[in-house]
Amino acid sequence: MMNMTMQMMEMHMKDMPMQGKDMMLMQECIEACSACEQACTMCADSMMGEGMAMGRSMCATMADMAGTMMRAMLRPNLMHMESMMAMHTATMTMANFCAEECMKHAGMSEDARMCAEACRQCAMACQKMMDAMTGMMPTS
Amino acid sequence: MMNMTMQMMEMHMKDMPMQGKDMMLMQECIEACSACEQACTMCADSMMGEGMAMGRSMCATMADMAGTMMRAMLRPNLMHMESMMAMHTATMTMANFCAEECMKHAGMSEDARMCAEACRQCAMACQKMMDAMTGMMPTS
Amino acid sequence: MMNMTMQMMEMHMKDMPMQGKDMMLMQECIEACSACEQACTMCADSMMGEGMAMGRSMCATMADMAGTMMRAMLRPNLMHMESMMAMHTATMTMANFCAEECMKHAGMSEDARMCAEACRQCAMACQKMMDAMTGMMPTS
Amino acid sequence: MMNMTMQMMEMHMKDMPMQGKDMMLMQECIEACSACEQACTMCADSMMGEGMAMGRSMCATMADMAGTMMRAMLRPNLMHMESMMAMHTATMTMANFCAEECMKHAGMSEDARMCAEACRQCAMACQKMMDAMTGMMPTS
Repeated sequence: MMNMTMQMMEMHMKDMPMQGKDMMLMQECIEACSACEQACTMCADSMMGEGMAMGRSMCATMADMAGTMMRAMLRPNLMHMESMMAMHTATMTMANFCAEECMKHAGMSEDARMCAEACRQCAMACQKMMDAMTGMMPTS
Repeated sequence: MMNMTMQMMEMHMKDMPMQGKDMMLMQECIEACSACEQACTMCADSMMGEGMAMGRSMCATMADMAGTMMRAMLRPNLMHMESMMAMHTATMTMANFCAEECMKHAGMSEDARMCAEACRQCAMACQKMMDAMTGMMPTS
Repeated sequence: MMNMTMQMMEMHMKDMPMQGKDMMLMQECIEACSACEQACTMCADSMMGEGMAMGRSMCATMADMAGTMMRAMLRPNLMHMESMMAMHTATMTMANFCAEECMKHAGMSEDARMCAEACRQCAMACQKMMDAMTGMMPTS
Repeated sequence: MMNMTMQMMEMHMKDMPMQGKDMMLMQECIEACSACEQACTMCADSMMGEGMAMGRSMCATMADMAGTMMRAMLRPNLMHMESMMAMHTATMTMANFCAEECMKHAGMSEDARMCAEACRQCAMACQKMMDAMTGMMPTS
């Protein structure tokens, strides 16, 4: 079913200031954000007890942020580099901190270990998008 | 990456009042909701002009509803049949109407045609979940 | 600032199949959903320990649902009664169950007691909207 | 009803590394984000035609971001300054661009004019939060 999103995006490619390679990076980033939202939603729900309160809050917030980032990339008319850069920066920053926090609980919770991995992948995908966008932005 | 969600869910299976077959239905429903949220987000952004105003609103709302439904299914501790039934009913009802509305624009917009398909798949997946849950609920 | 939403809605009134009294009910329902999303987000984050796992999941899901319902009512072009009825039914049902669950913890947690109250108000506001919409729907 | 959120937050004040003045700034920022999400949801739905495609996408994305930011501030256990700073930076940046874009349509659309105002208030409230947090962060 993921392929349907991919197909829909390809139809919009010709209108976008992106080349094939960058569209693939964006598709990867969409999937990484989606996986991160899902893992964080499960992980937030699984974390119990006082010692996990911060991790739980971070995962719940990360799920919201990853979903927001995913939806932004899916909108064909949102061709506003500065807004996208601001969101990618926030998503990457939070994903790295969330991965770090989840890793503290990875020994006790397999959910937390896998969630940390999903956050790391999300942070990396955002970083790649930012690198690609930097190449597209006019130098001043 | 979707497989990670699947793996995380399987770890929780033993705590859930569901059998393997039902877990597979839920996993399918999670993926159908995710695909529906993505297609509707793109489609809402692509629909222009007065004649598409209603379709656009329905897609934007369907994206929110599908995301809410997906997240509900991902929470291992949300074992409350009546709440789930209420959400599945709303998601299925809306997805059917949204598919119908998008089909009106399918001739002009490939986005709308594919979005209608994603909505239909989401409605069917919700229906299957409801059938399975009805079998699990105590008869009174 | 809430007044700005009210002002914006009033500009759309003339295009809507609603009368002044019904617009007021909708505005009240928007505010009740917003307050419910906020209370449930806080309450979900505050609930700790195994005994509160179900309540936490219900509050997190209720926050998503209330936000989705609020946004649906804010879209001036979403004039589709059946979809709205389906969402109001789900929101009301979940809000009532969430209020019930939170009340179990009201003795120990002031958050839970206030969250239960916000859920009850949300359920009542949805009920009123449904009553008003029933009056507007054609009898068959 | 907003007062309920305020009351709930005050109960958590004693556990938070914030003083009364900063709690008031946070409460103002929560309300500004909530008003911004509502205005942007309405505005995105009202914008029609090709010339408004970018504004519509920005408003839809801003609604998601403002909602995500609001929920982050409501979680009492999310005491992680760096994550909050990253989110406030993104929200402020986007709100300023969204206000600018909406102002281009303010002559034709009262919705857009009021939405621009809600975005500006949201940007200012985020800026104040960032200034307050900078004062709380340890200098290195």
